Amino acid sequence: MNFARFVDLADLSVAEIRDLLALADRLQQHPEPRALSGRVLGLLFLNPSLRTLASFQAGMARLGGSSFVITSGHGSWALETRPGMRMDGMAAEHIREALPVLASYCDALGIRAFADGRDLAADVADRDFRAMAALVPTPLINLESAINHPCQALCDWKTLDELQVPERSRFVLSWVPHPRALPLAVPAAALHMAALRGHEVVVLRPEGFALPAAVMERARAAAHASGGSVAETADRGTALAGARIVYAKEWGSTSHYGDAARDAELRAQLGHWQISEATFAAAAPDCQLMHCLPVRRNVAVAEHVLDGPRSVVLREAHNRLVVQMAVLHRLLA
Amino acid sequence: MNFARFVDLADLSVAEIRDLLALADRLQQHPEPRALSGRVLGLLFLNPSLRTLASFQAGMARLGGSSFVITSGHGSWALETRPGMRMDGMAAEHIREALPVLASYCDALGIRAFADGRDLAADVADRDFRAMAALVPTPLINLESAINHPCQALCDWKTLDELQVPERSRFVLSWVPHPRALPLAVPAAALHMAALRGHEVVVLRPEGFALPAAVMERARAAAHASGGSVAETADRGTALAGARIVYAKEWGSTSHYGDAARDAELRAQLGHWQISEATFAAAAPDCQLMHCLPVRRNVAVAEHVLDGPRSVVLREAHNRLVVQMAVLHRLLA
Amino acid sequence: MNFARFVDLADLSVAEIRDLLALADRLQQHPEPRALSGRVLGLLFLNPSLRTLASFQAGMARLGGSSFVITSGHGSWALETRPGMRMDGMAAEHIREALPVLASYCDALGIRAFADGRDLAADVADRDFRAMAALVPTPLINLESAINHPCQALCDWKTLDELQVPERSRFVLSWVPHPRALPLAVPAAALHMAALRGHEVVVLRPEGFALPAAVMERARAAAHASGGSVAETADRGTALAGARIVYAKEWGSTSHYGDAARDAELRAQLGHWQISEATFAAAAPDCQLMHCLPVRRNVAVAEHVLDGPRSVVLREAHNRLVVQMAVLHRLLA
Repeated sequence: MNFARFVDLADLSVAEIRDLLALADRLQQHPEPRALSGRVLGLLFLNPSLRTLASFQAGMARLGGSSFVITSGHGSWALETRPGMRMDGMAAEHIREALPVLASYCDALGIRAFADGRDLAADVADRDFRAMAALVPTPLINLESAINHPCQALCDWKTLDELQVPERSRFVLSWVPHPRALPLAVPAAALHMAALRGHEVVVLRPEGFALPAAVMERARAAAHASGGSVAETADRGTALAGARIVYAKEWGSTSHYGDAARDAELRAQLGHWQISEATFAAAAPDCQLMHCLPVRRNVAVAEHVLDGPRSVVLREAHNRLVVQMAVLHRLLA
Repeated sequence: MNFARFVDLADLSVAEIRDLLALADRLQQHPEPRALSGRVLGLLFLNPSLRTLASFQAGMARLGGSSFVITSGHGSWALETRPGMRMDGMAAEHIREALPVLASYCDALGIRAFADGRDLAADVADRDFRAMAALVPTPLINLESAINHPCQALCDWKTLDELQVPERSRFVLSWVPHPRALPLAVPAAALHMAALRGHEVVVLRPEGFALPAAVMERARAAAHASGGSVAETADRGTALAGARIVYAKEWGSTSHYGDAARDAELRAQLGHWQISEATFAAAAPDCQLMHCLPVRRNVAVAEHVLDGPRSVVLREAHNRLVVQMAVLHRLLA
Repeated sequence: MNFARFVDLADLSVAEIRDLLALADRLQQHPEPRALSGRVLGLLFLNPSLRTLASFQAGMARLGGSSFVITSGHGSWALETRPGMRMDGMAAEHIREALPVLASYCDALGIRAFADGRDLAADVADRDFRAMAALVPTPLINLESAINHPCQALCDWKTLDELQVPERSRFVLSWVPHPRALPLAVPAAALHMAALRGHEVVVLRPEGFALPAAVMERARAAAHASGGSVAETADRGTALAGARIVYAKEWGSTSHYGDAARDAELRAQLGHWQISEATFAAAAPDCQLMHCLPVRRNVAVAEHVLDGPRSVVLREAHNRLVVQMAVLHRLLA
């Protein structure tokens, strides 16, 4: 297998994912410090980053390559993404120029562009990222778009493998509190990953926070093909019973998408969705907590859980480096 | 030929420029991925950047070297450039310390310092950049100063060569609209480059936006030596007739230099200077649009031109990487 | 000798420091451009930097390694450092996750975290940095903490060696003016370094700016072991008589620590503590000025001194690169 872009885990078959994870393992056991010698990765961030920013640079370096970082608005121009604009505002440059130019300087380009958070249909269709991807002729990596985060999904899969979490076990994607609405990229990517891996997936979220129908349907189809299932509920007791994994994630209201005031009203009542040890009362004894980070301690998850034995969040984050090295190797070696 | 700094294209003879462009070609055809092994380029930005920031890092990497970036005010101290100041304001550090220190960490230093935009004579004399250059004992690269942008001029020359634009053809440097006054560095550098290459250069700009006399005179002398010519007009019809190249660029009023209110008054009437397909009505059939980027779509240039066959702006931008690798090779190999 | 972290010069014996400086000399004379091939240094900045940012990247590159930079709040998340917080404010991520994750991506991690500047006892105990250090299992470098700056102290020692400043000579650490209160890290580190090197150290500071008792006691113990001495005075005449080194540094009031208004009241009367040539009237004829930079010209030190023959500040700053390469070599080779 070879591929020219890594923008959505769903573009790969389960066999191709397993191949990629096997490559990740092989690179851990047998480092290839010259594999990408002379290759250059460009990294364009329209939004903040810690893990992605650090791990891609470290991963390229460990494979013998180099990288450069452009952060829109921090030492570089603010970028316009909307088509057809009369550009008389803050943004000095349009992605129609910026993206092909940056791509022409590097062997692969990674782009992070969070959801706009106003038009649910556009965000679910990943409209902006798809428009950007169409401007990039070189190998492309999705560093998190409106509705996807394939690097996170791949590292989560590897983490589940390492923890020997059975494929048919219960995987609960649980909404957790946050001071404000966050994008749907990670919940959508995690849901799809767990469905594709064959889990009994339960999406646990309050009323008003249902994942979009298109995301759910796509996950159901993946689950069907893999022998898993996807259910959805607002009942924490039912959902968590027998859970082998609780995957905590914050996201915004979908019934009031882009309406900060109504979203805030809803979430003001939902502080008790914070995950604490009590959350695991009816879960499997070896139930573990996953989270993509960053996580707000004592808001989304109580710190006794984050610092306790159930938490595998640091392992997940470390696996970002491990799986991305496989992606880079596949795209560029 | 060898040289210790690359701060002004006019420091080089036409033969030396052709040598440098030949080296750029050679490095494209026969990459030298270890040529700058162990060498370190420092990049200091007092102003935003996309192409320069990305292409210099990529260029060093492709030649086997490394680079570091310091962006004043973004994770690094705000820098004072004025001499003799009592430094009790925002700036924590003076360039009199910062520049020699940074230079002592690297094998070559690149500096971007846009025009102050208040004192026309000082900016035309490149007073601040010259003061900075005097503080740097190591090889130095001008990443855009008040009145110069030699990397842009060199990539433009290469682009004209690639497009086989005849040396005696008409090259129109056309003022275009922008929400506010921009510096004179690129128009001055592009004018000089075109004069040096032997073009029939026409500077097309509205009243109030004439390029400074010193810039025009320097270009006329270069044109004279190369067999070209330099004219100036505010008449778009006359200027564009038979044009082989329209080089679009935004700049501020020189008759009201540094006076934002008067400048804004003038430019409020000049929206129709935007370049559209109609601009090319009397131009040569194969007339092409050049621009250094970033460009404001539908303000400076209509997007049907930017996205159409006349535009060579992406090729120009890619050539930044190509020619800068030659500059780095010449300075450091 | 080998060590796993470089967080405080006082962790090393004088013999170990001399070993490290000998390694720095050796690397200057016999570069090892492949010594750290394949190794990755992570650099986390919670505060601005110029020298540290540039010199660590350059140093890794000169030894064949790579580095990445994370700057909190500039393209990366604002980080929470306080334990036990309910994280419903600005900070999206806690160091309890960020530090182990970043450490897991690199072979050594450098951290800069300036003093909080509110709780003197906590800052003198370097409470925050110690908490951070406990979260980092990999080799760790202190890039400046609340009360320490070992890289600066080490380069200062090397500078004194290069200048052949006798170990028993008078070293005056002189408070100098600044628009606002600055941390105690450099004065504490410079004092300890000079005491450890065996100087007759005089801490010269106005009333209200005495260095904390714990810092003074630690320095006195070091001086005792090395055959030097540590005195303290507010009398500029007495202190400067016979001085071989004036080490200028700005810091905040310790008697009104964290009280910006009272601190400002005190420093409003102290502009005459600025160092000028007159400061050296009774000093040794070859008395030299040291300063860690950045320095505010004509506020802390008159520019005729900074630009004159007494100043060795650029040499000091260059030695940051030199000694840090030895630290990196020791930690990672």
